[in-house]
Amino acid sequence: MAATPLSGHGLLQGKTGIIFGALNPQSLAWYIAEAVHREGGRFVLTNAPVAQRLGEVDALSEKTGAPLIWADATSTDDLDRLFAEATAHFGGGIDFIVHSIGMGMNVRKNRPYEDLNPDWFLKTLDISAASLHRTITQGLKAGALNDGGSIVTLSFIGAQRTFSKYSEMGDAKALLESIVRSYGYRLAKRGIRINSVSQSPTRTSAGSGIRGFDLLYTFAETMAPLGNADSDSCADYVVSLLSDYTRMVTMQNLFHDGGFSTMGVTDELLELLGEGLLKGQDSSALQELFGDKK
Amino acid sequence: MAATPLSGHGLLQGKTGIIFGALNPQSLAWYIAEAVHREGGRFVLTNAPVAQRLGEVDALSEKTGAPLIWADATSTDDLDRLFAEATAHFGGGIDFIVHSIGMGMNVRKNRPYEDLNPDWFLKTLDISAASLHRTITQGLKAGALNDGGSIVTLSFIGAQRTFSKYSEMGDAKALLESIVRSYGYRLAKRGIRINSVSQSPTRTSAGSGIRGFDLLYTFAETMAPLGNADSDSCADYVVSLLSDYTRMVTMQNLFHDGGFSTMGVTDELLELLGEGLLKGQDSSALQELFGDKK
Amino acid sequence: MAATPLSGHGLLQGKTGIIFGALNPQSLAWYIAEAVHREGGRFVLTNAPVAQRLGEVDALSEKTGAPLIWADATSTDDLDRLFAEATAHFGGGIDFIVHSIGMGMNVRKNRPYEDLNPDWFLKTLDISAASLHRTITQGLKAGALNDGGSIVTLSFIGAQRTFSKYSEMGDAKALLESIVRSYGYRLAKRGIRINSVSQSPTRTSAGSGIRGFDLLYTFAETMAPLGNADSDSCADYVVSLLSDYTRMVTMQNLFHDGGFSTMGVTDELLELLGEGLLKGQDSSALQELFGDKK
Amino acid sequence: MAATPLSGHGLLQGKTGIIFGALNPQSLAWYIAEAVHREGGRFVLTNAPVAQRLGEVDALSEKTGAPLIWADATSTDDLDRLFAEATAHFGGGIDFIVHSIGMGMNVRKNRPYEDLNPDWFLKTLDISAASLHRTITQGLKAGALNDGGSIVTLSFIGAQRTFSKYSEMGDAKALLESIVRSYGYRLAKRGIRINSVSQSPTRTSAGSGIRGFDLLYTFAETMAPLGNADSDSCADYVVSLLSDYTRMVTMQNLFHDGGFSTMGVTDELLELLGEGLLKGQDSSALQELFGDKK
Repeated sequence: MAATPLSGHGLLQGKTGIIFGALNPQSLAWYIAEAVHREGGRFVLTNAPVAQRLGEVDALSEKTGAPLIWADATSTDDLDRLFAEATAHFGGGIDFIVHSIGMGMNVRKNRPYEDLNPDWFLKTLDISAASLHRTITQGLKAGALNDGGSIVTLSFIGAQRTFSKYSEMGDAKALLESIVRSYGYRLAKRGIRINSVSQSPTRTSAGSGIRGFDLLYTFAETMAPLGNADSDSCADYVVSLLSDYTRMVTMQNLFHDGGFSTMGVTDELLELLGEGLLKGQDSSALQELFGDKK
Repeated sequence: MAATPLSGHGLLQGKTGIIFGALNPQSLAWYIAEAVHREGGRFVLTNAPVAQRLGEVDALSEKTGAPLIWADATSTDDLDRLFAEATAHFGGGIDFIVHSIGMGMNVRKNRPYEDLNPDWFLKTLDISAASLHRTITQGLKAGALNDGGSIVTLSFIGAQRTFSKYSEMGDAKALLESIVRSYGYRLAKRGIRINSVSQSPTRTSAGSGIRGFDLLYTFAETMAPLGNADSDSCADYVVSLLSDYTRMVTMQNLFHDGGFSTMGVTDELLELLGEGLLKGQDSSALQELFGDKK
Repeated sequence: MAATPLSGHGLLQGKTGIIFGALNPQSLAWYIAEAVHREGGRFVLTNAPVAQRLGEVDALSEKTGAPLIWADATSTDDLDRLFAEATAHFGGGIDFIVHSIGMGMNVRKNRPYEDLNPDWFLKTLDISAASLHRTITQGLKAGALNDGGSIVTLSFIGAQRTFSKYSEMGDAKALLESIVRSYGYRLAKRGIRINSVSQSPTRTSAGSGIRGFDLLYTFAETMAPLGNADSDSCADYVVSLLSDYTRMVTMQNLFHDGGFSTMGVTDELLELLGEGLLKGQDSSALQELFGDKK
Repeated sequence: MAATPLSGHGLLQGKTGIIFGALNPQSLAWYIAEAVHREGGRFVLTNAPVAQRLGEVDALSEKTGAPLIWADATSTDDLDRLFAEATAHFGGGIDFIVHSIGMGMNVRKNRPYEDLNPDWFLKTLDISAASLHRTITQGLKAGALNDGGSIVTLSFIGAQRTFSKYSEMGDAKALLESIVRSYGYRLAKRGIRINSVSQSPTRTSAGSGIRGFDLLYTFAETMAPLGNADSDSCADYVVSLLSDYTRMVTMQNLFHDGGFSTMGVTDELLELLGEGLLKGQDSSALQELFGDKK
């Protein structure tokens, strides 16, 4: 599936928007910004002020000719300023928003799910999910969203099923996907659509913050018939969702995962599992593993 | 479907638990408490201190012989005290928890979804969803949960689909159902299972807090092939989920809704819709309704 | 949402395929063929021999420069001939298949669901669902499918939920969507992806074969926040799924329905329902309607 | 989770029914029959005439005092005779049906999914899914189904996701689950409910007919937080669904699987996968496994 990057087809010619969350060249939002640029879309880049010293987003700004406006998506004031500056820049409203924001406070500090710090948990929900609500609300209040626009946020299948390493982030993504549905109904009055893309694990800086991520990545790679969807293909898919080709798709969670989500088990995984079981036969670890169930 | 109330079968003989959320005889938790009592289960009743002056839960306490312990499920201290007193009362751990807690801060104050107060939104999530996480966490820390137990929380299909009147509560229930899955994985190590029951709209005090609830109730009644599931049948269903008959069911959202959730449209609804359209033909309201789409 | 038809972006330049099911200008497959043509894709048109005298597909063939090959998709021999002629025409394998085939034998003859003719039911399944399996199987055997291709079939949400008028077709679509998943796993070895598009009701000749279709259409229109997705937007969406922009999407059922599928109830529907209830107050019909449930 | 078998609680006292599919003591239907008997339910046992020489169902008939009536559930005549004899035996209609019938013609003959014999495929659908439709239809026509009854059929998660070894049976189960929904709407007029139980893999004779079943069983065991649900617990769960405790649950597919269905990945599986990967590092098999994807 080693697709060569697509050449542009002008799919987003004439459209303007805001892209949240590009931090470094591993970020999904970085790939998306490049693909949107390739397709003729114009945009403003934004990220939280705390990312200012970590990131390399200046380079992306330069490369794509996109102004960089620092704003905390959990701050109403920051969002108001962002929309004011963005609409001033474009001389009008915006056609699309890409929301790629997530932060697991407890995950980051290695607090297990059975011992979440309740305040951090709410903070995780605020950053990773409620920020989408707040962004749209302030965009509407500012009159900054054009009719017929498209909003995309990034999610993960942990919203529907429990992944041992993903902890509170599964809950945050479930909330995020619900906000997509709830707001989608209200936005439709303006012809604006909104969807989440449930993306394969990718080797981003966000991904690598989760313990055991490599095994999770390999598991998904083994279970997805097409393999894990990479960041390039994700960016191209997001382009299609921002374009008019998908103008009647809204309030959906769209799996971009090489088929992982509808796969029960592949022969490849069973084979690997067989190998693991064989290897384990002489190890007490495996006996322990199954000991309590039989 | 007017079922006579079931007579007890001793399904919960020997089991002890805590029931959250009974306020008055319209509460689902009230019905559940009575059914659990009928089936031989023993329990402690609890509700938030603010409910003390509103409710009539003393009567239920007396009727079922269940101690009443006031506790705020968003307060770690209150939960610690609750588990301490409950285990002292039973002289041991508990086998079940029924969590029936929900509060839409913005709904209550008529803030529309496009204008949620962000702090209230987080408070709604804390009360209606994170309280389940906190309850289980404190129960585990207190060593108060017996192996092989069962936890049930009450949800609504607004977690999966958008109901215009349900607003932020849909998001809260989506979060709640995700917590059921996430915690279910961890609780399984102890043989404890956890599920949500996605209940039909019922004429509870909670339900009547939502504007336009009567129409929603009627809509669901018209769409559910068996009609809306009433509170008596809900209580009986919860009993089955607390019993050993369902001991391998966990991490599920179980629709108790007369078939509403898998119904696309009934003839009855189409007929009513036809009547509404006919009636509307001479009204400008209807032209307006469809005018912007055609 | 009255979108002007898109202008082409060359999304399918260099791709070849087969489009099943165009019959007349109301057919979804007809719209799809025109959109694929606009995007630079080349294709063969096919339909069942029985459609020969009903349809007007010659005009489409002429307009798009696509050969027309009559073939019954439930006949292995016909499919073999189709693939032989198609690959001969293109001088090589094909990159895409659009499968838009459905026929409810019992629906057509007004046999209610409680009295399906069992042989006709199997025939319905064969035509509407197994035909997809057979087409892919014969395509693979003929060596006619290129690596990296894309297959799209048309479905309806009746596959997941029961629509009173849709009868056996809901079952056929459920089977169809399962075949998409099952075959998707096997096709992935070749980098071929396959998805179903679950389309809004549209005023096609297929749709109008179902009794009470107009009310169903209106119901869906009232429930879908963006309104029903029309045939033009469906064709554009299918183009996006045949293009490389969606190259890692497979084994999915993708709702193209203006948000209908994730909507619980809209204010508009509740309002209409209220009108219907009011009108009905003086009619015995309504008392009857609810009489047996209360 | 090694639960001791439940003692009866008289949950099905006074109820009569028909149980399809008990063949030998490994059959799920066998376990169900014993549990229904324990709970006071009376029933007729039935299976296909071809099972007569294979099975040991006479012993079950004797043990439970249930008449044994041979009938092919794909034969209208056989079903008519079955309902006539059953109602004659009970002196009235029946309250429940348990449908546990499945047969993969191509699976049995090792025809891979890419090479299904189309006639056998239809036969698989007829036996494993349409037989449920036919049974209910003939039961209704015979006036043999009491108001307020309950119908349960057995399914597998292969209906929603693709399991490499499960082949056409995934499609058959998807069809079966759709028939549950479609018929559920019609049966509700009589207060009859119908659900499918999506059961963990169990070591039944049916299960062992599928190649690679042991690895599949182990995979599911490793992924299900409570482990695979065994046949005893399945039988108890079915009892709860036939009882009045679940009288408003209908048209649902209910996972009885120890949490498998909502689990993304467990630590246990990741650990085994890690072992398999390590072991494979020096084997060319693994390089081959991943070689084509990277």
